[in-house]
Amino acid sequence: MQLSEVHPFLSRLFHDPDLIPLPFQRILAPLIAKRRTPKIEEQYAKIGGGSPIRKWTEHQGKAMVELLDELSPKTAPHKAYTMFRYADPLTAETLQHMKSDGVKRAIAFSQYPQYSCSTTGSSLNELYRRARAMGLGADSESEHDIEWSVVDRWATHPGLIAAISENILKALAEFPSSVQPSVVLLFSAHSLPMEIVNRGDPYPLEVSSTVTAVVQYLRKKTGFESAYRLVWQSQVGPKPWLGQKTPDALKGLARNGRKHIVLVPVAFTSDHIETLYELDHEYGQEAKEVCREMTSP
Amino acid sequence: MQLSEVHPFLSRLFHDPDLIPLPFQRILAPLIAKRRTPKIEEQYAKIGGGSPIRKWTEHQGKAMVELLDELSPKTAPHKAYTMFRYADPLTAETLQHMKSDGVKRAIAFSQYPQYSCSTTGSSLNELYRRARAMGLGADSESEHDIEWSVVDRWATHPGLIAAISENILKALAEFPSSVQPSVVLLFSAHSLPMEIVNRGDPYPLEVSSTVTAVVQYLRKKTGFESAYRLVWQSQVGPKPWLGQKTPDALKGLARNGRKHIVLVPVAFTSDHIETLYELDHEYGQEAKEVCREMTSP
Repeated sequence: MQLSEVHPFLSRLFHDPDLIPLPFQRILAPLIAKRRTPKIEEQYAKIGGGSPIRKWTEHQGKAMVELLDELSPKTAPHKAYTMFRYADPLTAETLQHMKSDGVKRAIAFSQYPQYSCSTTGSSLNELYRRARAMGLGADSESEHDIEWSVVDRWATHPGLIAAISENILKALAEFPSSVQPSVVLLFSAHSLPMEIVNRGDPYPLEVSSTVTAVVQYLRKKTGFESAYRLVWQSQVGPKPWLGQKTPDALKGLARNGRKHIVLVPVAFTSDHIETLYELDHEYGQEAKEVCREMTSP
Repeated sequence: MQLSEVHPFLSRLFHDPDLIPLPFQRILAPLIAKRRTPKIEEQYAKIGGGSPIRKWTEHQGKAMVELLDELSPKTAPHKAYTMFRYADPLTAETLQHMKSDGVKRAIAFSQYPQYSCSTTGSSLNELYRRARAMGLGADSESEHDIEWSVVDRWATHPGLIAAISENILKALAEFPSSVQPSVVLLFSAHSLPMEIVNRGDPYPLEVSSTVTAVVQYLRKKTGFESAYRLVWQSQVGPKPWLGQKTPDALKGLARNGRKHIVLVPVAFTSDHIETLYELDHEYGQEAKEVCREMTSP
């Protein structure tokens, strides 16, 4: 995503009732999107002029397809398509490519490991609506029908757990061995408004299950006994969100003399503004003010 | 705990700043305790005139000691003491018994599997204060010094996970086999005020880790694939607490036609008012109004 795409991205985001149910959404959404655009553009400028999320997602897709061709030659050749909920390429645009390519069998693979109605739920609703409208749904009885299946959550998949855990071990190895036992693992996930938590969204439990599985992996592999916490980042607006907030946790640990911390993004599978700006730049800056040493896998 | 003990119990509970930080605590606590006493007395009357928590805790202590004598003859004979934070026998009373018995080595074993500052934290603070004042702390240099160690959390202990899981399997077996795949497991834990969640209490993550471990156990043993949710019970007062609320989840499931539910208390290790009154009587009653079939392990 480039800087010029920030406004259309925010506009689509605030128009999505699955993500942010707003009163008078059609009126409020454009106003909020317009007001927030300059600030977000500035954040993207600071991480190099845009988000690398499309680059990394396409890279991951390509690597996965190579693996699939090897593991499942019967269904080869495989092809990866990328679709975003609010940025280009949007769901409808990618579906159009799939239609031109004559795709007959597809797996919608959510890149959110943990399911929330506001992320995977919203994306699958959009996919369902668009595919149906374009005659690409299983029940649309058109000649372009695609047979769909869905991977909607993989919070404790062994591959995910090993990837996060091995990154943590690399980060821990950067500390002097005398310091390592006192390092705190601070798992950080995108927060959720309490409104969504309180209507029973499975996301907090699924994020917790990732953390539990990572800690089990580390204990088994290294006898890991360090302290760890799960905290929540990226709260916006005046309404209550799930906490503890990541920056508050950093300050609290520093106050208690716990100044060796590994910050672990636990609900993102590639770098983008929440990891590169918030975790590295914003929280990293705050942390440097209160902590001596600081690393992020 | 008998009916006559309800008022002193509530009074101690509302006086504990670790559990409920109140403004003007010394003035407000007795007022709130007095106001709530009749309602809670009535609830205890409905579950047989009092709480069985002391009976079950002493029973568990006795069985544990028998096992310890067998497993660790070198440190035998072992003896179990029970202390409650707000009900008889209180911390100080039990410490007096331990002093008279000449105990020199003790393990403070929290009966809350998951750590919260407001439960285990409050109990250990009370133990530390009382033991110190009575010359029973390791650093008090008195002739009665006790060497203490602490078991402060055991949220994923294999014994706990097996016990909860086997109770679930028994409850599932009561459903006709045609219905079993559609049964929803509703894990229910005592909620926490958002104030405490937002200051970084580890309880929500530790409760989640118990649920994750139980689901792993069930998957491994039976290929279990049912839906499950973690929800939160026993909210009181006007301030925001962590949700989704257990009764709201029951109503929501019923609305969606999911009427086969196993309600699983996941943060209690013996029956008391939260399981016998709230889960069985109150929620069970509400559930019967919206659901056809209902069971609780």
